[in-house]
Amino acid sequence: MESQEKTLNKHYMKIALKLALKGQGNVNPNPLVGAVIVNDGNIVGQGYHKFYGGPHAEVYALKEAGEMAKGADIYVSLEPCSHYGKTPPCAEAILKAGIKKVIIAMKDPNPLVAGRGIELLQKNGVEVVTGILEEEAKKINEVFIKYITKKIPFVLLKTAMTLDGKIATQTGESKWITGEESRKYVHKIRNSLMGIMVGIGTIKKDDPLLTTRLPGGGRSPIAIILDSKLSISLESKIITTLDKRKIIIACTEGFDTEKSEILKNKGIKIIITPKDKDNRVDLKYLMRELGKEGIDGILLEGGGELNFSAVNSGIVDKILCFVAPKIIGGALSKTPVEGKGVEILKGAALIKNMNCKNIGEDLLIEGYFNS
Amino acid sequence: MESQEKTLNKHYMKIALKLALKGQGNVNPNPLVGAVIVNDGNIVGQGYHKFYGGPHAEVYALKEAGEMAKGADIYVSLEPCSHYGKTPPCAEAILKAGIKKVIIAMKDPNPLVAGRGIELLQKNGVEVVTGILEEEAKKINEVFIKYITKKIPFVLLKTAMTLDGKIATQTGESKWITGEESRKYVHKIRNSLMGIMVGIGTIKKDDPLLTTRLPGGGRSPIAIILDSKLSISLESKIITTLDKRKIIIACTEGFDTEKSEILKNKGIKIIITPKDKDNRVDLKYLMRELGKEGIDGILLEGGGELNFSAVNSGIVDKILCFVAPKIIGGALSKTPVEGKGVEILKGAALIKNMNCKNIGEDLLIEGYFNS
Repeated sequence: MESQEKTLNKHYMKIALKLALKGQGNVNPNPLVGAVIVNDGNIVGQGYHKFYGGPHAEVYALKEAGEMAKGADIYVSLEPCSHYGKTPPCAEAILKAGIKKVIIAMKDPNPLVAGRGIELLQKNGVEVVTGILEEEAKKINEVFIKYITKKIPFVLLKTAMTLDGKIATQTGESKWITGEESRKYVHKIRNSLMGIMVGIGTIKKDDPLLTTRLPGGGRSPIAIILDSKLSISLESKIITTLDKRKIIIACTEGFDTEKSEILKNKGIKIIITPKDKDNRVDLKYLMRELGKEGIDGILLEGGGELNFSAVNSGIVDKILCFVAPKIIGGALSKTPVEGKGVEILKGAALIKNMNCKNIGEDLLIEGYFNS
Repeated sequence: MESQEKTLNKHYMKIALKLALKGQGNVNPNPLVGAVIVNDGNIVGQGYHKFYGGPHAEVYALKEAGEMAKGADIYVSLEPCSHYGKTPPCAEAILKAGIKKVIIAMKDPNPLVAGRGIELLQKNGVEVVTGILEEEAKKINEVFIKYITKKIPFVLLKTAMTLDGKIATQTGESKWITGEESRKYVHKIRNSLMGIMVGIGTIKKDDPLLTTRLPGGGRSPIAIILDSKLSISLESKIITTLDKRKIIIACTEGFDTEKSEILKNKGIKIIITPKDKDNRVDLKYLMRELGKEGIDGILLEGGGELNFSAVNSGIVDKILCFVAPKIIGGALSKTPVEGKGVEILKGAALIKNMNCKNIGEDLLIEGYFNS
């Protein structure tokens, strides 16, 4: 049996993680962090990282606790920082407040600072416990972890298919394969990731807005359009409605023409990449460029062609595959990943930690690419 | 909170259901039944229906209990029979043994006898409780229930695909999409169902044995081959190794020629059906014929063409879809259900009660057709 201390640690850390999630969509490319201060069995302060550049979770929690922070325990989902960034270091604030013990879910993944916050606390006589609900903490910050360590965005490939692996009927009808709850779920993901990426094929076929549509509104991600030959129509809805939203169009060298100037004048950023072996946008190159733009995570809602290129080039970190309770058949019906395909099974891209849950009447399969 | 009685009822019924499952593969087209006799809190007798035509579960349990059956409770996963069939009626045996109370999971689904066993028991002063773990009991006998009520086989469509909906690479490599545990699971299903059905395309392409290969051996199902034009090669492994195994080949009218005689002489049964609108075996007709042969359940391991015809004709009851943690892509790669496909989403075959579990590194999605 688990010790009572461990049970309590998990209990309060769960609260801290739940608080952390409240920042979803507003803190990128910073991490989601939650903090809970417990004094003699009572929660005396709570906080979370609310918006990019704003105070850290610990600051809110310490402020709420006030004098009650003295001799108390603080639960933080991420190691408190020890450096002067946009805000003063939290480890120092914790020391100053007289906190007795710090319980941490995961160390700072930034290799430049990892462990320094813990060191500072311990050196000053504060007890530190680490690794409480570490897996859960890593999961909610999977985008941040990839970005802070690699400087390239975390890419989440989303597909939606019938139980027989089709994304549309043979006549092309695809609205809607999945149910309402799944579609709402996708808008929550759009709200939480900084970028959304599609190919020009999707723009031409569906003329989508790529906005986040949630009951409370939501923040629309930066739209990233792969358009090798810069063939996008200026009449596309995404361009006519761009307003103050950020749009990035990636094209290949040699297409940086007049049209490019028109688009730039509309406030659209054009990224020019080398051509890959199929004369398309070099996805790996593009990811590095998008990383430089501060984009930490991208939702890829591609068609079968783009999905194959993305998986094949190794830029995809995670897959979310909605499966609808329908069979439509059709040797000619479109499937979620097409392109050239791999020739032999040994060449398949492998998924790890695959699991599944029900979303309304659909299933949602989640997994990670071996990278 | 649940009453203690209800909790105990569920506890013992779970044991009865577990016993029932021991008969899997040996009782078709009879139901799986388990029985547990409890006297003063002690299990004094257990039994299950072991083989087709053999004694019922209650008989074994009563024999084991002996004198201890007097005043005891019996838990049976299916209503005890009240008619003279291959064995004398169990309801009478229960009365004779002096059982005080009978707890039943589900009524006999056979409309001709449903409720009669219960009636006989109650009329003779025995207390009867019904509906304990009814859903679970119905599930383990889903094949029996369909067959006894409709006289046509329960059809289970099995597919195995990658997470992007492919059953083979574009070069046709399909061994193996799924992992070892999934493949073993399929052999357990082959062991539990009376028939296995494939199209002539699969015979020509894979030359399969369609046998059950389990560590302990296992019973191979009756092989049913759809071969509209009776074009099967006499050199196919399934024919050269047929031995004493039962094989049924279904062809259409007009192909009942010399070859048909050769096959019959080998002990193969030929079923001739009218042509469907695509000039192929009429699946609905065939199912009625197979029902007459006493085949209660069929595992359909078809290719994309046959799977579509089967789903489209409405003969499929359940689908099991293994999903492997792989992406292979390919616009030309084969998918689990092909054929003509439906034109519009509204025409899709709908699945209900879809759920999912992990089988080794794969997922197994299960669902039922709305029929």
